[in-house]
Amino acid sequence: MTTPTQQRLSLIDVVNRCDSFPYPSDPRLERLSFLTFIVDEIPCGRIHSSVVPHIVAFNQQDRPVFHITETTISFMPWLADYDSRSDAIAQMLNIWRKAPKSFPSLSGWRDELYGVYTLNTSPLTTKGGAALAIERSACGIFGVHAYGVHMNGYVRTGPRPHEVKMWVARRSATKPTYPGMLDNMVAGGMGFGHSPGYTVLKESMEEATIPIEIARNAVPVGTISYTKLSKDETDSQPETQIVYDLELPADFTPTPCDSEVENFRLWSMDQVLDSIRSGEFKPNCACVCLHFMIRHAVLTPENEPDYLEIAQRLNRRLEFPGCKKWPTFKEEQ
Amino acid sequence: MTTPTQQRLSLIDVVNRCDSFPYPSDPRLERLSFLTFIVDEIPCGRIHSSVVPHIVAFNQQDRPVFHITETTISFMPWLADYDSRSDAIAQMLNIWRKAPKSFPSLSGWRDELYGVYTLNTSPLTTKGGAALAIERSACGIFGVHAYGVHMNGYVRTGPRPHEVKMWVARRSATKPTYPGMLDNMVAGGMGFGHSPGYTVLKESMEEATIPIEIARNAVPVGTISYTKLSKDETDSQPETQIVYDLELPADFTPTPCDSEVENFRLWSMDQVLDSIRSGEFKPNCACVCLHFMIRHAVLTPENEPDYLEIAQRLNRRLEFPGCKKWPTFKEEQ
Repeated sequence: MTTPTQQRLSLIDVVNRCDSFPYPSDPRLERLSFLTFIVDEIPCGRIHSSVVPHIVAFNQQDRPVFHITETTISFMPWLADYDSRSDAIAQMLNIWRKAPKSFPSLSGWRDELYGVYTLNTSPLTTKGGAALAIERSACGIFGVHAYGVHMNGYVRTGPRPHEVKMWVARRSATKPTYPGMLDNMVAGGMGFGHSPGYTVLKESMEEATIPIEIARNAVPVGTISYTKLSKDETDSQPETQIVYDLELPADFTPTPCDSEVENFRLWSMDQVLDSIRSGEFKPNCACVCLHFMIRHAVLTPENEPDYLEIAQRLNRRLEFPGCKKWPTFKEEQ
Repeated sequence: MTTPTQQRLSLIDVVNRCDSFPYPSDPRLERLSFLTFIVDEIPCGRIHSSVVPHIVAFNQQDRPVFHITETTISFMPWLADYDSRSDAIAQMLNIWRKAPKSFPSLSGWRDELYGVYTLNTSPLTTKGGAALAIERSACGIFGVHAYGVHMNGYVRTGPRPHEVKMWVARRSATKPTYPGMLDNMVAGGMGFGHSPGYTVLKESMEEATIPIEIARNAVPVGTISYTKLSKDETDSQPETQIVYDLELPADFTPTPCDSEVENFRLWSMDQVLDSIRSGEFKPNCACVCLHFMIRHAVLTPENEPDYLEIAQRLNRRLEFPGCKKWPTFKEEQ
């Protein structure tokens, strides 16, 4: 369906759209204006300077919550545990939510908490390895590490690894983010307290009506990680997607269950690649497809000039601590 | 065979042994003393300050070869193409080779050229995408990007991806580097003018006597990349290994062909992991095994605390240009 007038992206362009925050050696970094968000003396995120006046205003209370310097924002020493920190952030966000012009991302309020993991995991000050939890839609304001799962559903068409077709989802036209764009078969954010394995099973049912006996065959095959910078350069989002492959029988057809997916199509790898190059995929989903194509030898060092660079860039080293222990299945069921 | 007194490494320790050059935010970086090696205005490597007096000495000629500043070393403008640059470096290395105390790495002289790839690939100044070529054993002195292939040979023991055994090679006790350590089934450096696919076939025959009809089933499944810093902190080696998987029939047994391998063993994934943790693998080969274990769901986000970090670290973003076009099979045969 691609017409000659449409854009054609290189695969590195595709990665750049997802992993858009400049790297240390990039001169664009100098014009950005972020402070480091520090928890327990460990950098855990970044906050844009335009947010600082709002934090200062919130801080005007008998017992200030934040310690603010020219380059850092951290909690005052009396906020030394998971509950007190999470409460303080929640109070502040509930005020900010009423200022939709200053905080457009909060208009997508999810009522879902994301953990901010840290290295010091004493049960006295942390919960499930997290130093605090933050409402999902605010993660980009604090630049804290977010997590999700993405699953490639595929069908074999021959014995060789690249002989596969892939199920591609079209996002609903009414979705607030990336409406109508192409997506992986199943994907979802990982709320605090959930494990990757549980999230995959839950989303498989919710998004594609995949019965548990089939979804259970999904296998974790690695991750993609990147840091997104918003177009206005004030939100930054370091993110890791844990990637799953699910081989499906040729006679299985996924069906949208909730209203998030419009339809599913089973495409050849050429069709997927063509849609990636014409910019039809949601950027991080395109990267999950590239990760699949590298592992399945659809892309090879000999057929893709940026092969080495793509392999490196799909796993950006995120500078903030990651989660080291997910809840067990038992704990969350 | 591991005794309780032996070291037990975490898997992040294992990655750190291979990818040992400090990252930009690491304070250890400050005590290192490297100049940037620049070709055609593009950083292509790094040279330790202790090497500079040797370059200055070589430069004492009617027409100096190098332009040396406090932080950079580059070619004088008259050395503007592949041949003149490669010749100049070769002349210098032939002098240095006679000073084994100053340049111990040159005692492993290979008489094999490695390409130094660049972004400007005009055929007037470059050859096969390379701005120059350097003797293999000198790559670490110049800190230029080196390439190799590593192949995992495995046998299925069940239908699920983690139900596999892996062929492990023991390096010959007389090998100059990492004698007696464990290695992937097949591995080899990629000399200038060779493609990854060709190198895999050639090394499969040379190292493991794998006939071409079988070796041809090897599939490229990604890369590992890292930068090694030598123990004395004067050599740095950014390196990419292109990783192949070769599924083998249960009745196939590899046999050492040249004198580089002592023997091959077919091990369970537990045995491989145990040997990795006890430090018996050559460091980059251990990383290739971890890459395999992530793709085959032997390691999962739920059973390995450093899963996210390992996935990121196995593909370090190398800051120097990589090769974008390998020779075709036809060109090299």
